[in-house]
Amino acid sequence: MSTQKPGFLPIPKSIDKSIGLIAREKIDNKTKPLGSLGSLEDIAVKLSTIQGNTKPAINNALILTFASDHGLAEEGVSAFPKEVSAQMVDNFVSGGAAINVICKHLGIDLFIVDMGVDSELDKKVIDKKVRKSTRNCAKFEAMTEAELELALKGGMEAFFEIHEKKPVDMLGLGEMGIANSSSAVLLIASMSKIDIAKFPDMVGRGTGLNDKGLLHKRNVLQRVYKLHNLDKASALEAMCRVGGYEIAGMAGAAIAAASLGVPIMLDGLISTAAGLFAYSLIPEIKDYMFIAHKSVEKAQAYAAKTVGLEPILDLGMRLGEGTGAALAINLAAVACSIMRDMASFEEASISRGDLS
Amino acid sequence: MSTQKPGFLPIPKSIDKSIGLIAREKIDNKTKPLGSLGSLEDIAVKLSTIQGNTKPAINNALILTFASDHGLAEEGVSAFPKEVSAQMVDNFVSGGAAINVICKHLGIDLFIVDMGVDSELDKKVIDKKVRKSTRNCAKFEAMTEAELELALKGGMEAFFEIHEKKPVDMLGLGEMGIANSSSAVLLIASMSKIDIAKFPDMVGRGTGLNDKGLLHKRNVLQRVYKLHNLDKASALEAMCRVGGYEIAGMAGAAIAAASLGVPIMLDGLISTAAGLFAYSLIPEIKDYMFIAHKSVEKAQAYAAKTVGLEPILDLGMRLGEGTGAALAINLAAVACSIMRDMASFEEASISRGDLS
Repeated sequence: MSTQKPGFLPIPKSIDKSIGLIAREKIDNKTKPLGSLGSLEDIAVKLSTIQGNTKPAINNALILTFASDHGLAEEGVSAFPKEVSAQMVDNFVSGGAAINVICKHLGIDLFIVDMGVDSELDKKVIDKKVRKSTRNCAKFEAMTEAELELALKGGMEAFFEIHEKKPVDMLGLGEMGIANSSSAVLLIASMSKIDIAKFPDMVGRGTGLNDKGLLHKRNVLQRVYKLHNLDKASALEAMCRVGGYEIAGMAGAAIAAASLGVPIMLDGLISTAAGLFAYSLIPEIKDYMFIAHKSVEKAQAYAAKTVGLEPILDLGMRLGEGTGAALAINLAAVACSIMRDMASFEEASISRGDLS
Repeated sequence: MSTQKPGFLPIPKSIDKSIGLIAREKIDNKTKPLGSLGSLEDIAVKLSTIQGNTKPAINNALILTFASDHGLAEEGVSAFPKEVSAQMVDNFVSGGAAINVICKHLGIDLFIVDMGVDSELDKKVIDKKVRKSTRNCAKFEAMTEAELELALKGGMEAFFEIHEKKPVDMLGLGEMGIANSSSAVLLIASMSKIDIAKFPDMVGRGTGLNDKGLLHKRNVLQRVYKLHNLDKASALEAMCRVGGYEIAGMAGAAIAAASLGVPIMLDGLISTAAGLFAYSLIPEIKDYMFIAHKSVEKAQAYAAKTVGLEPILDLGMRLGEGTGAALAINLAAVACSIMRDMASFEEASISRGDLS
């Protein structure tokens, strides 16, 4: 995949990959059968590599939940009406949504970023609004190049501003936006070079379409895919034609985090699409990325495969907001404690197994 | 499966299953697409049913890690020497093992119970030792009926004694015992009525056998399976012939917990074998049981299927000690907070989706 990074995007902080080998050796000497903590071990090694030492920690995690509206909602591709985006942001502000409850329970900071909700929002929301809603990509390009730049910069600024006040050691990305599973699927199909007409299972039920609604969504997305020649579009072109402000905003925040050496936890379908977009522009960002969970939405698996990352959890979730990211950040913090605090065979004077 | 519960075992506290329907309706009205929190929703509903109200909470979880030695270790079925059981108990006492680190990180209480380690142990370990090691079941019955009764009672007492001092709202079960994956596989094969000669994949690498060691383990277990006529044994007979004191102890603790209405989180292969044993004696205990994670050891899946429960997590783990149970208890606590604290559509004034 060719890199086409616009000049204003910072590059990821460089990583000393030799730390990864030292970390692997350290965890292999812990008092447990080799590899017996499964993906916890891989997470701990990757975080050691990112943090540049073998005592990794996650104490100040942040979830940024990006909200926006999509003109494509006019085509009836979602089970929920468009006004729910703004209503859900109110719910975030009141603390009643799933992501609020999970972050509160797990001690993770949460901020909501308005990238383009079609409404005036509460002052507690970080305002990076590019425009009220993208245009309907069934008829127009969703956003201009200038708007894409604004959205990327808005996401970057949101991260930088919070990080400056209280340094973040892991960034989880979430979103809210009626019709954004449609946008994400189109982006993933384009950037993974998969013709959605040939892989209809890429298009899922989103918030809960019935069979008739799903068929309609598939038809609309196949039409939009052709309309915008997504099979030949660059990542930047695809984002302008069918993307979302919140998806570009998440990519901007991820790029900002990686530039400061902060690891990124993608959530489900939509944020993995954002991660794939960031990866398409800056492949090195992959070294900072984790995918929290396997979404019920199948297109996410195509995106994960293109990036070359495996989701950590598989809990049958498909909510978004950053809910899976919060759970996986909590697991990553446990993985760090394993690397830091478990005894080695030598320290505990335990006989080694015969693994030869 | 016929019940053959010995008289001294208490029955599970009765459950009002109608609470489950009320809890399901409550979670279906939360501000999220229907079912979009996947298995978190099922956990929350089951815990509401167990706790008898729709404001479930897990604030005082306990992991009990049962340790014992197995005479079968003499047959060379483990990659680690037998003395590691006692060495690992020392490691638990010093706080250096994975289960210590995870419990400390997650705020879960942890106690170690000696059911039959072949050594004198630290005073900090709860002493319910039945005997120093089971007998080698390749030659003898592993334990007598009287010893099985002692082991079950020891597990029950361990739970009751801790619970009396500080009430427990979820019990996680872990274990340590060189060669206990062999014992667990034999128990599962017997209680699930599966001939291990025909399903060799039931026998796994345990702590990390190489190919030669795995072949040897398979041969030994097939021989033991035949020797003890495990295809026709009752659950109690199978436990006496090829079981382990720590496995019986875990079953005792689970039965004690259920008798007081406390939910049980099984861990991986060995504790799921204990759960299957308890279920074979008292089928109603299933209503109190969760399986924390899918072990790399395939026999666990047979046990889970026989009981009729799905593991919650799948992280490629195979350590035991209760490590998976601790992670899943943490997730279950999050699930409870969802049930308690998330807003409903009505409370948040959010438009409903068209799900018709």
